[in-house]
Amino acid sequence: MPNRAAAPDAALDAHLDATKADRLESYKAFLRIPSISAIPAHADDCNAAARWLAGALDAAGLEHVDVAETGGHPVVYADWLHAPDAPTVIVYGHYDVQPVDPLELWTSTPFEPIVVGERILARGAADDKGQIHAHLMAAAGLLATRGAMPVNVRYVFEGEEESSSVHLDRWLDGNRDRLAADVAIISDSGFFEGNLPAITVSLRGIMYAQIDVVGTAVDLHSGGFGGAVQNPANALAQIIAGLKGPDGRIRIPGFYDAVVALSDDDHAALAALPFDEAEYLQRLGLPALVGETGFTTLERRAIRPTLDVNGIWSGFTGEGSKTIIPAHAHAKVSCRLVADQDPDRIFEAFRSYVEEIAPPGVTSTVRYLGGGHPSLTSVDHPATRAAARALEATFGRAPLYIREGGSIPVCASFSSLLGLPVVLLGITPPDDNAHAPNEWMDLANYETGIRTFARMFDELVDLPRT
Amino acid sequence: MPNRAAAPDAALDAHLDATKADRLESYKAFLRIPSISAIPAHADDCNAAARWLAGALDAAGLEHVDVAETGGHPVVYADWLHAPDAPTVIVYGHYDVQPVDPLELWTSTPFEPIVVGERILARGAADDKGQIHAHLMAAAGLLATRGAMPVNVRYVFEGEEESSSVHLDRWLDGNRDRLAADVAIISDSGFFEGNLPAITVSLRGIMYAQIDVVGTAVDLHSGGFGGAVQNPANALAQIIAGLKGPDGRIRIPGFYDAVVALSDDDHAALAALPFDEAEYLQRLGLPALVGETGFTTLERRAIRPTLDVNGIWSGFTGEGSKTIIPAHAHAKVSCRLVADQDPDRIFEAFRSYVEEIAPPGVTSTVRYLGGGHPSLTSVDHPATRAAARALEATFGRAPLYIREGGSIPVCASFSSLLGLPVVLLGITPPDDNAHAPNEWMDLANYETGIRTFARMFDELVDLPRT
Repeated sequence: MPNRAAAPDAALDAHLDATKADRLESYKAFLRIPSISAIPAHADDCNAAARWLAGALDAAGLEHVDVAETGGHPVVYADWLHAPDAPTVIVYGHYDVQPVDPLELWTSTPFEPIVVGERILARGAADDKGQIHAHLMAAAGLLATRGAMPVNVRYVFEGEEESSSVHLDRWLDGNRDRLAADVAIISDSGFFEGNLPAITVSLRGIMYAQIDVVGTAVDLHSGGFGGAVQNPANALAQIIAGLKGPDGRIRIPGFYDAVVALSDDDHAALAALPFDEAEYLQRLGLPALVGETGFTTLERRAIRPTLDVNGIWSGFTGEGSKTIIPAHAHAKVSCRLVADQDPDRIFEAFRSYVEEIAPPGVTSTVRYLGGGHPSLTSVDHPATRAAARALEATFGRAPLYIREGGSIPVCASFSSLLGLPVVLLGITPPDDNAHAPNEWMDLANYETGIRTFARMFDELVDLPRT
Repeated sequence: MPNRAAAPDAALDAHLDATKADRLESYKAFLRIPSISAIPAHADDCNAAARWLAGALDAAGLEHVDVAETGGHPVVYADWLHAPDAPTVIVYGHYDVQPVDPLELWTSTPFEPIVVGERILARGAADDKGQIHAHLMAAAGLLATRGAMPVNVRYVFEGEEESSSVHLDRWLDGNRDRLAADVAIISDSGFFEGNLPAITVSLRGIMYAQIDVVGTAVDLHSGGFGGAVQNPANALAQIIAGLKGPDGRIRIPGFYDAVVALSDDDHAALAALPFDEAEYLQRLGLPALVGETGFTTLERRAIRPTLDVNGIWSGFTGEGSKTIIPAHAHAKVSCRLVADQDPDRIFEAFRSYVEEIAPPGVTSTVRYLGGGHPSLTSVDHPATRAAARALEATFGRAPLYIREGGSIPVCASFSSLLGLPVVLLGITPPDDNAHAPNEWMDLANYETGIRTFARMFDELVDLPRT
């Protein structure tokens, strides 16, 4: 018989209350490791974070703990498989974090976590170490108080989510034996505006590329050569400007071909979300919101594909003036994708179009830095329903169902590669500054989230097994 | 009676032959001082270069040597005024140099000069320390061999030419008493393609500005916000792309209003210059030359105004990928100007147009980083003729008359502020990598150039006095 607790779980609550101070120290220790996956110089730190996590999983009482080689940063695996009659749940999160620049905009040191009121500030506090840590504490609490988990659980914590999960698919494909499961719970999403509990039912995919425009071998004097040669930086600006029309539509031929049109009900559900556009604009501090003609702000940021420059650089960027024609110019450009756009096909269309519109007199090339598929799940799936019950039981209100603008490529990996239903259950506040300076986590979300994750296992006991 | 030598000056030649090794060491010592005027951290180095120069002028036998405060980097002044019946010549050069980045493209250390064959490599070897040093050696040689100069000479060596000479005009205006003269010789130009002796008869001016596009206070997650907000880097690209049409014409209203049309003779003179476009293209290593429709390459780079991005930066520019919408984006943009475009007016037109075409949803501002007027001189002026005779006597061939694309704002200062005729007599090779990595000076040009500068004083003895 499954080890299912009556709700609320008083023993778990008492245990969590008693261990709160130690838990915060453990959370901080995890946050101190600067596991920035996109920067090669931080490879050792990523390994250190993986080893720290493996130690914590072992200490929680989980089994088969493994820091698994992937060819890139390791996957940390652990399981608990002693509920033969219950379903098996994969829990996914990532221990790597975004880079921290611009460092001067942080009010604290990114990898020295501090608590200010109900907030803990550090890179990764929310995305995604905070969520991993809450899962760790849920498992430790259940095993400490019940000596068992209500379902079988396999933990898969990746170290390359912030750098396009380049090695994960191959690892998943090569480890199907230890990934047999009935559902995947992905905890890398968050709550809705106003910190309202939410389950994400769709995610955008991503295509990330770099455009390199090369002119001469060295910078030229802009007086001696200006007017006679193409300027790589001007050419790059022309390419980027050519990618979008004044209506915000992306001009790449075929770009929208695979976009699944939303039903009237989908549009209505989006329109029904509590969203104060004036407050949103004020919080961003912008003069206006700008996007694709014919769509609302919620639609633009969630169900429409995008094209954004993530970085651009060329020539002299120091103080003062330098009169050169830069030898080369570069931009990182990414598109957020929606179902059923394919990142590889979008990259090819992007490359072709950049080559078509690239001005003469310089050499423009495009290279692929990574991609991930968009994903859609169903509100009616029993696993989504179980997650909703867990949120309502612990946070005290039924979740909203939202469509998230971000990308978690691994969703597509779990659904298409392993054939699993995927539920996105995350507990971070919506304004957590993930990917920006001063990232923070709401400690009330974190504490209640531990209970949510534990309760979710209870709610999944009756999940139909595949 | 003027101290005029018969040509060639055998005593001067013998003196220069005997002092060649010491001269090279002195030249190297001057080049070792990293006097980058545009970078505030190098202010002390600019002062050191000024003091070095003052010491060398004093050692050469010149008088009233002064390191004169300007509010910025000092002007170094010295004179020799003992030829009451002869005209007075101002010699202008600058001891400041361009920045050195990208440092990784230098094959040697920028401020550790080395001699390779007939070349000396270092930042400033040509532009403009090499020319200043040749003047120093000419004065020292004349005073050592004749005990006198053939004309009165006032040396004005500035320290802010590479950062728009911001304090020079005020200094010139406030020092009219020690600037009384009949002609200004400016040695900051060079020879024509093929290292052919040349006198520059026109220079372009410059307007240098920075565009700053600001969105949110911190970078945003490109997934959560992409589509809903204007991207400052995309907006900046759109602004830059809007500044020029596909025909290479600058779209700023009124931009071309003050441009003086060249006469048929002017066009013919340009067309007659020995210029191998195929060789030029091959040397640059570009797929094609690109510029304003309706003009030749020589015209585009010399007598037409330009608009070039000198630098651009925004967002994540490191290795790998980071999924952000940058908080802000910046570009340094400059226009080369031709007679009679006024840099201040062009800046106002530029600013108005940028504000007009700036996309909504972000805040775009423009600020002025400096400017300089274009200048024109006459081939028929007696001072130009004197310089031509000096070049022919020392280099063995009559000079070409060229129109240079670069800017020496001080030309306009000497002509309009002090009312002097200006002759641009410079001795650098045309492919000297000024403003780029691996700047070099041809040592044969330098050695012969010392004799040219000395001879020029002899040729100026009969200049009509103002």
